[in-house]
Amino acid sequence: MSTPPPLPERPRLPWDPPDHFEKRIPDGDNRERLVCARCEFIHYQNPKIVAGAVCTWNDRILLAKRAIEPRKGFWTLPAGYMELGETTEQAAQREAREEACATIEIERLLAMYSVARIGQVQIMYRARLVSADVAAGPESEDVALVEWKDIPWEQLAFPTVIWALAHFHESRGKTDFATYSNPTGDLARMWPPRKPAGV
Amino acid sequence: MSTPPPLPERPRLPWDPPDHFEKRIPDGDNRERLVCARCEFIHYQNPKIVAGAVCTWNDRILLAKRAIEPRKGFWTLPAGYMELGETTEQAAQREAREEACATIEIERLLAMYSVARIGQVQIMYRARLVSADVAAGPESEDVALVEWKDIPWEQLAFPTVIWALAHFHESRGKTDFATYSNPTGDLARMWPPRKPAGV
Ligand SMILES: [Zn+2]
Ligand SMILES: [Zn+2]
Repeated sequence: MSTPPPLPERPRLPWDPPDHFEKRIPDGDNRERLVCARCEFIHYQNPKIVAGAVCTWNDRILLAKRAIEPRKGFWTLPAGYMELGETTEQAAQREAREEACATIEIERLLAMYSVARIGQVQIMYRARLVSADVAAGPESEDVALVEWKDIPWEQLAFPTVIWALAHFHESRGKTDFATYSNPTGDLARMWPPRKPAGV
Repeated sequence: MSTPPPLPERPRLPWDPPDHFEKRIPDGDNRERLVCARCEFIHYQNPKIVAGAVCTWNDRILLAKRAIEPRKGFWTLPAGYMELGETTEQAAQREAREEACATIEIERLLAMYSVARIGQVQIMYRARLVSADVAAGPESEDVALVEWKDIPWEQLAFPTVIWALAHFHESRGKTDFATYSNPTGDLARMWPPRKPAGV
């Protein structure tokens, strides 16, 4: 029996605080924060928003092959960190453009997942490609418009990619549905990555 | 004709960077970031998540009177900054507990608003109070369970409070509806605060 691949570690990120930051409860606060021991700057670490989309061209779904760690070489949905000054919809559109040179129209909110382990809230839209003209951006090795039956389930990058695809599938043909959130049951345990039952 | 009150300024917040931080494009990045001139720490400023809820006890809605700036003395829905390690639902529950000593059950996602001007994404749930036992927490001067006809529209703290209440009203009795997002039209222009048409 082989061991499943470890769930991707949250890599060291550029905004991770340097070692000379120390834990302290600031005046008027009620929890420990990281404080720069040199300049007393209080570094509040808050959950980060990742915005992305399940983008379709007719029956095909846009996937991008990651050119960067974590999970380099695995397939993902266009998604990334939201920046200041944009809306969640604009962030999802920008990520589709940056990662897959794709122009998309946001259709509606598909899902919102809290991934507390890595301090993320992932906001996933259902979107339509304005054209089939897509190409790998700098963070992608490749892009593809794949039919449902050809989704490379075992080669998907993250559990949330599987969740979003399964929820997208469940929402197909519906116009009014509750935004999906973190799954329970089998779908919550899609690691190592594989095709969920019933999709 | 009197001038409307100014839209509340985003106050100086504890996580605002000190003056010795300077703007610079870090290696490998494509936009200006704030960098500590003393220790080279890159301070990525990201949108912050505010989680809250429209909480009901039968037909009454839970409001809290703000004891702190901005908009001290005005009425709001329980909501606040999400912390690391919790889900969006847990953040909304914690805020209801902290601001109104209220225990709530999350029903479903009501709305998600991007407020780019102040770098916030507001995530608002529909929730039920587990009991009518509510009281002002340290950040509130008062709390109240008000009937729809008694909502103090002109005394509401922020435009997004008006949006959430109007969207809540529109969603009443519905189980499946698309999560609301930033309004357009009249509802987008509810400043100075007032009762929206048709609610
Ligand atoms: Zn400094
Ligand atoms: Zn420092």
